[in-house]
Amino acid sequence: MTELTTTVTVTASALAIGDELLSGRTKDKNIGHLAEMLTAAGIDLLEVRIVPDDEARIVEALNALRARYDYVFTSGGIGPTHDDITADAVAKAFGVNCGHDPDALALLSAHYAERGLEFTEARRRMARMPEGSRHIANPVSCAPGFIIGNVHVMAGVPSVFQAMLDNVLPTLNAGTKVLSDKVSCPYGEGDIGDPLSAIAKAHPDVNIGSYPRFSGQGFSTEIVIRGRDESAIGAARIDIESMLSTIRPADLTATV
Amino acid sequence: MTELTTTVTVTASALAIGDELLSGRTKDKNIGHLAEMLTAAGIDLLEVRIVPDDEARIVEALNALRARYDYVFTSGGIGPTHDDITADAVAKAFGVNCGHDPDALALLSAHYAERGLEFTEARRRMARMPEGSRHIANPVSCAPGFIIGNVHVMAGVPSVFQAMLDNVLPTLNAGTKVLSDKVSCPYGEGDIGDPLSAIAKAHPDVNIGSYPRFSGQGFSTEIVIRGRDESAIGAARIDIESMLSTIRPADLTATV
Repeated sequence: MTELTTTVTVTASALAIGDELLSGRTKDKNIGHLAEMLTAAGIDLLEVRIVPDDEARIVEALNALRARYDYVFTSGGIGPTHDDITADAVAKAFGVNCGHDPDALALLSAHYAERGLEFTEARRRMARMPEGSRHIANPVSCAPGFIIGNVHVMAGVPSVFQAMLDNVLPTLNAGTKVLSDKVSCPYGEGDIGDPLSAIAKAHPDVNIGSYPRFSGQGFSTEIVIRGRDESAIGAARIDIESMLSTIRPADLTATV
Repeated sequence: MTELTTTVTVTASALAIGDELLSGRTKDKNIGHLAEMLTAAGIDLLEVRIVPDDEARIVEALNALRARYDYVFTSGGIGPTHDDITADAVAKAFGVNCGHDPDALALLSAHYAERGLEFTEARRRMARMPEGSRHIANPVSCAPGFIIGNVHVMAGVPSVFQAMLDNVLPTLNAGTKVLSDKVSCPYGEGDIGDPLSAIAKAHPDVNIGSYPRFSGQGFSTEIVIRGRDESAIGAARIDIESMLSTIRPADLTATV
């Protein structure tokens, strides 16, 4: 009996915004986290771009990505200072106005009043979003992210980005999850590349990745089998293990 | 007396290649390192893309980036296995053939002979590069990267990427270095956003960035002044310090 399953593919892209990422002053931590969380949710992250705090470049990248993928996730540029221009750029990309959102103003106003802090013009700036946006709640520091069309605009500070993403994930259409299995291989890629290539060709339903690790002395390899069908992954694994067991002791070199 | 200086701008982009970066299995370490090294060399990294091991996507991204920036630096996909397709994709982007480079074959053949290792077809694969490429020496594991046009193709393994980049950097045209200075600010961005915005407008020759730090309790801010003219940076710093000294004690809130 053949089991019929429908595979649903949902695609995504990420746009990290900020001069500091491109100068090297800040090392991005959001892309890797987003990648992990999307993979776990069955959503395929297929492209990432990093651009500076420059309106024209943000607009261009955003329009390219939102046309091509089911979802876009942005990080950075939604704080209170003059270099936080993401809301304006997103509004421009969508051709809508960017203004102070009344609900966000109310939220922030109450937040600062509770703390006895002045609701400065800079803080009011964090209530600005493209017309028609929905909020992404920010349990860390109140100022919401927002969703417009298929674009999810989130903060750059990793703890805030992660909290916003936790609120966003349950609202997304999830695809069929990609399953993965891995085989640790003590040999370098050069030792296994030829037979592994043959195995990859014989198992077109899975994606076999081979990732070198360099210890300082020599290379070993992690072989990762990814796919949406568990039995296809299992079949590839059997062939890979069988291949590894035939590598001759003379080849136990752990070098590329 | 006015000192006349010429500012030279050299631009760059990065293309990180690999399914593992987009699945979250591997966290990229090359982009941040490249960004730091280029900044130190006076080269402006202006865009980064991450794409999967997919020929069409690599070709598309590479052609977009190489047309737009002085330099492109790629990482990943030049190992010996079937999923290492960067050399072929780069050749396709340039419209040239990809074949076994005789000098690279000779290097690798000697390298493996010295170690008593078979020069497998997989290992020979690492000698493949687009016709007309020049080598980037790889002191870690021999297999060279390559340069074609303005594109520098390097390994994904961070220790190898870094070693290759060390060999590449002295060959690049360097721009006028971007200098930077920073002012640590114990207040959140919401406290300083308005006056900082005015200072940024008053100092158009420098770029003033403001980066929130969240301690778990509240926010502080690092203010970074970047520019190519030391005296302009110094003037902006004086205004920022003067502004910070006027913040009232009631505002010492360290919250956004």
